Amino acid sequence: MTADQLKAAIRDVPDFPKPGIVFKDITPILGDPKLFRAAVEILLARHKGKKIDKIAAIDARGFLFGGAMADRLGVGLVPIRKKGKLPYKTYEQSYDLEYGSATLTIHQDAFKKGDAVVLVDDLLATGGTAAASAKLIEQAGGKVVGIDFVVELAFLKGRQKLAGYDVFAPIVF
Amino acid sequence: MTADQLKAAIRDVPDFPKPGIVFKDITPILGDPKLFRAAVEILLARHKGKKIDKIAAIDARGFLFGGAMADRLGVGLVPIRKKGKLPYKTYEQSYDLEYGSATLTIHQDAFKKGDAVVLVDDLLATGGTAAASAKLIEQAGGKVVGIDFVVELAFLKGRQKLAGYDVFAPIVF
Repeated sequence: MTADQLKAAIRDVPDFPKPGIVFKDITPILGDPKLFRAAVEILLARHKGKKIDKIAAIDARGFLFGGAMADRLGVGLVPIRKKGKLPYKTYEQSYDLEYGSATLTIHQDAFKKGDAVVLVDDLLATGGTAAASAKLIEQAGGKVVGIDFVVELAFLKGRQKLAGYDVFAPIVF
Repeated sequence: MTADQLKAAIRDVPDFPKPGIVFKDITPILGDPKLFRAAVEILLARHKGKKIDKIAAIDARGFLFGGAMADRLGVGLVPIRKKGKLPYKTYEQSYDLEYGSATLTIHQDAFKKGDAVVLVDDLLATGGTAAASAKLIEQAGGKVVGIDFVVELAFLKGRQKLAGYDVFAPIVF
């Protein structure tokens, strides 16, 4: 299974979430076990042999891939969620959206100092969510050793916000 | 690893999400690879040898376990999400909350007719979310062959809303 086969499975949904946007729908990848496993394997391949202590996954679609990745690696799984969703003491990072801003949080006890952390989300768009998430990992004592996405919308230049990080996405539009 | 060891890892967070509620925080299970894998294995053990076609996972914490379960079983993964979050054509089910109501959705093409589906969430409370999710699976042509939770708050009597389904939760409070 190649990244091109994964890419071919992605469904364009016009005018979602609002008119003029063509949404890249990954649910056909999730729904097909060969494709889902291939996505997980392609994301993990580049980490082979490296020391990874935790997977940090971004709410909500990042959880779908992050759960499988942490299980396969035999490492812990840390959720990064919108403010108000995590019950224990959190660190916060706010970032700008097209209109307004959003705040993400992570539990303060998510990592041991220096833990090697791979950050996972389904899609890299403008990079704001991932950049805030990377800062949260560092704030909580982790070291971001990689940021993995299934899909990258390269025309939105999200990698610019993630300069200095080791970013990977097998499917690029 | 036993269900009692999982239970011992759950953290009580008082007054979350509001005063008077003691929240059962499962992030210590997620964060410890032995516990996370044990939770996944305990949930899957009872399905061994049975025909399962899909895992349906409830947004958002159900995604963390559902991703690992679908990957281990080699079956597809179907997200059930709040209205407005899934991009393609959806079915909807509304259910009552303590104040007001909520609407969950599933993609109309999530299943082949008669697919055997295991529904997964992290926690069974009043059962409203899971009951609506089970209806969505049936509306989309699936058959609910099991409903799995990591934790059950038995005093909220959620099983009553799930009468007729094969419900399992290894950790009960």
